Amino acid sequence: MAVYTEVTDEDMAAFLEGYDLGGLLSCKGIAEGVENSNYLLHCEAGFFILTLYERRVAEADLPFFLGLMEHLAERRITCPQPVKNRKGVALGRLAGRPAVIVTFLDGIAVRRPVAQHCAMIGEGLARLHDAGSDFTITRANALSVDGWEPLFRAAEMRADNVLPGLAVAIADELSYLERHWPKHLPSGVIHADLFPDNAFFLGGKLSGVIDFYFACNDMFAYDIAICLNAWCFEPDMSFNITKGMALLDGYQRIRPLTVEESEALPLLARGAALRFLLTRLVDWLNVPEGALVRPKDPIEYVKKLRFHQQAQSARDYGLLK
Amino acid sequence: MAVYTEVTDEDMAAFLEGYDLGGLLSCKGIAEGVENSNYLLHCEAGFFILTLYERRVAEADLPFFLGLMEHLAERRITCPQPVKNRKGVALGRLAGRPAVIVTFLDGIAVRRPVAQHCAMIGEGLARLHDAGSDFTITRANALSVDGWEPLFRAAEMRADNVLPGLAVAIADELSYLERHWPKHLPSGVIHADLFPDNAFFLGGKLSGVIDFYFACNDMFAYDIAICLNAWCFEPDMSFNITKGMALLDGYQRIRPLTVEESEALPLLARGAALRFLLTRLVDWLNVPEGALVRPKDPIEYVKKLRFHQQAQSARDYGLLK
Repeated sequence: MAVYTEVTDEDMAAFLEGYDLGGLLSCKGIAEGVENSNYLLHCEAGFFILTLYERRVAEADLPFFLGLMEHLAERRITCPQPVKNRKGVALGRLAGRPAVIVTFLDGIAVRRPVAQHCAMIGEGLARLHDAGSDFTITRANALSVDGWEPLFRAAEMRADNVLPGLAVAIADELSYLERHWPKHLPSGVIHADLFPDNAFFLGGKLSGVIDFYFACNDMFAYDIAICLNAWCFEPDMSFNITKGMALLDGYQRIRPLTVEESEALPLLARGAALRFLLTRLVDWLNVPEGALVRPKDPIEYVKKLRFHQQAQSARDYGLLK
Repeated sequence: MAVYTEVTDEDMAAFLEGYDLGGLLSCKGIAEGVENSNYLLHCEAGFFILTLYERRVAEADLPFFLGLMEHLAERRITCPQPVKNRKGVALGRLAGRPAVIVTFLDGIAVRRPVAQHCAMIGEGLARLHDAGSDFTITRANALSVDGWEPLFRAAEMRADNVLPGLAVAIADELSYLERHWPKHLPSGVIHADLFPDNAFFLGGKLSGVIDFYFACNDMFAYDIAICLNAWCFEPDMSFNITKGMALLDGYQRIRPLTVEESEALPLLARGAALRFLLTRLVDWLNVPEGALVRPKDPIEYVKKLRFHQQAQSARDYGLLK
């Protein structure tokens, strides 16, 4: 949850004057997202979300993120839509930060997904991969294998404070993944952060996807591996193969995996677990004074990583074919 | 800001089934209030606020708070209205806590009030005092002079860590106020926490008042003294007499002060400053591990208290008659 940046009344009024949304009727900080400040705006034109981009989101990447949301919506992927101001521009500045108003998207994020949710998320992810295939802007994945070493360096000295032996375990895993990371799997635009927080359901269907601020160009199967990590473990960190099966089956109903993708799945799942382990570890070790955000526990991903290290093949995730 | 209690999907669905609000379309934690968990609900019937009552709000007091909001609305004071479930009851339970759905109230809380806001708040406070005069439930003010001693005891040993000499300064003030606190001033239902956070403005008018969870029966002039503390100091903690004049004049347009009330104003302002100094000090010294709330600075009220200690009469607050 996060509202980092406070906006003065005058700045807010001046910012909104640039839009055709009518008068502001209400503005409430919402406890959502850990990277940005989010406000729910009630304007005469309706309800909207105002996002102020904080650390980790590079301003140069915003045209990619905003363009992607428009591109996907044109291809019937339901996601928030950037609202353009009177000059036809979606990206503005407010309180010294890049700022965007997007449409308010109904839907409920499930806290405890069941297998049916996993099936819908698998299918939705495949549709998203298809829909992004003709998006022309590209963005490298800064948090793929090349980005893990610098993250590890930032956390290495204090990693053992979190869990004895963690620094060596990460160094070994990193070394292994750097040597074996696949290079030629089918790639395109991936969401790269499709956790249960970022998927909305309504009436028993996936109703929308939000938070595209880690989206990038990378291997499709890596996005599946992220979802296996995010959706298919139980609270005790055991892997639920029924959920994995549902997710992979849902995905393949839209886009069947190649043999190479299937074979790479355990390795990609290791990489995905290490990626979230590293970012959580860095956040855990660097909670700023007076922080309003409780960092997520990195240990969760140590346990998930151990599962992946034991996996023999994609069958261990529920892949049937 | 606060979302303390997480609600499971199943509990939320079961809770809402008791209401005639249609299906739930969206639920977002909102960063508002420091005492309770608040969610913005979008139901088929519209937008609502769901409040889960946490510490400091005694369940036995909820009928007073909810009844008061209904009573005031019937007398044209705009405030959130408790929504009754199918059994005709507003107070429910969710996630082990007392829970209430209230109507969503449009309006903008001003961050930096100007004199015009103070005039409107003065007038609004007097209208609220009038509207509450025939409310039949009563609630003693647990945070009046008798409640300050226990608060002080909870903070005394560590008060000097916040500011050297603070413990003695508070003890002296407390002793003075206990000896001089007035007993027979006009009393009734007061808001007792009408800070800028809790007043909404729209179209240049006071459009609504929220957060009645400190409301109680006490002296009307004490409520004015709270507002003088909350609305009329500048960020450097200097008192803005133009704002004080506007607030007092606005109040007296609706309900003129008695001579006794005017004379008591400096003393009541001292008491109000000490009350917020003490609760902030206790909060400051007792931030729980992993807290998501940044406590408010008690020093602000040390400075305000010093101003009040120097005040000679109500004229020093801008009272003209």
